[in-house]
Amino acid sequence: MQQRSIETRRRIMSAAIALFSAQGYNVSGVAEICSAAGVSKGAFYHHFPSKQALFVAVLEEWLAGLDSEIKRIRGVSGSVTESLLAMTGVMRDIFSQAEGQLPMFLEFWVQAARNPEIEALVIAPYRRYRHFFAGVIQQGIDQGEFEDVDADLAAGMLVSMAVGYILQGLVDPGGADWGMQAQQSLERVIGSLRRRAG
Amino acid sequence: MQQRSIETRRRIMSAAIALFSAQGYNVSGVAEICSAAGVSKGAFYHHFPSKQALFVAVLEEWLAGLDSEIKRIRGVSGSVTESLLAMTGVMRDIFSQAEGQLPMFLEFWVQAARNPEIEALVIAPYRRYRHFFAGVIQQGIDQGEFEDVDADLAAGMLVSMAVGYILQGLVDPGGADWGMQAQQSLERVIGSLRRRAG
Repeated sequence: MQQRSIETRRRIMSAAIALFSAQGYNVSGVAEICSAAGVSKGAFYHHFPSKQALFVAVLEEWLAGLDSEIKRIRGVSGSVTESLLAMTGVMRDIFSQAEGQLPMFLEFWVQAARNPEIEALVIAPYRRYRHFFAGVIQQGIDQGEFEDVDADLAAGMLVSMAVGYILQGLVDPGGADWGMQAQQSLERVIGSLRRRAG
Repeated sequence: MQQRSIETRRRIMSAAIALFSAQGYNVSGVAEICSAAGVSKGAFYHHFPSKQALFVAVLEEWLAGLDSEIKRIRGVSGSVTESLLAMTGVMRDIFSQAEGQLPMFLEFWVQAARNPEIEALVIAPYRRYRHFFAGVIQQGIDQGEFEDVDADLAAGMLVSMAVGYILQGLVDPGGADWGMQAQQSLERVIGSLRRRAG
């Protein structure tokens, strides 16, 4: 893509994130997004076939950022426990970066629950994270760091707890330092997997 | 309330649950709810000042059922650990009873994130459950069953994990037996709180 084209795409996505976050996905129309981004409808549809496709692009970009951060941490040498503990720090980033954007993702989940086409796009990352963490935990078991737990269930615990904190942070943003609590809670779960000495 | 009045209220609430679940809160109007329930608009507004008030009534009834079940379990004599483990069974009930209704609650959370009036109603039960479980866990600590953990953080772990599983069950209903996985995960967290022998 040419530099100008990349910039146009970037501007559309930024405007969409701002509008979806502030007023919601459903009520934000393509015309309004174009106006906020300062682009023509022609330019919009050159980049995105629909508002839904735009949303998917926003979601995928966000997830790609998460993925690369998690993989970067896993790539740093160290024990499985150290890797997992370092990854809990990503939770803090999610809360600080995604502030204001969380309602948008929640709204999309609601859409997904009623739309089989979008559903697959929302389910996929869930399953991918769970599968990834199950693999890391299994490695910890094989290397003797962790007890012989059900790696898939343990991965489900971590993913569910993370998602649960994200939802609490969304509903009750001023209620607590959710990012810190999420990190501490995940640390405890990871600690509970460790093989007890003796 | 007279018997007939109670029945009318009941019919309105049942019709609303069915419509909100099937097509969503936003698109289900009062006229449609009245028609499905077989009541007049006059009867509707006699019982509920607004659609929002109706939703709040549905939410509160659901939560009241959960509350009484949790308190019933706590009332049965036994250790704190036994109580908490028995309460994890409530998760199975949530998944089986609330099937089809979860999108409605999720949608309401989205509304809440944008509406301070509703927000308080959604935050309150979160805080209440967390406070309740923190109290139970503190009792377990005081009685020597549990390690000397941060009771509020431990309660947050349980509530977040439960909520995270509810959300996964909503987005990916066929992906797993979420009720069972939620129960097993909560059992593990409760187990990790227990004071180690020795």
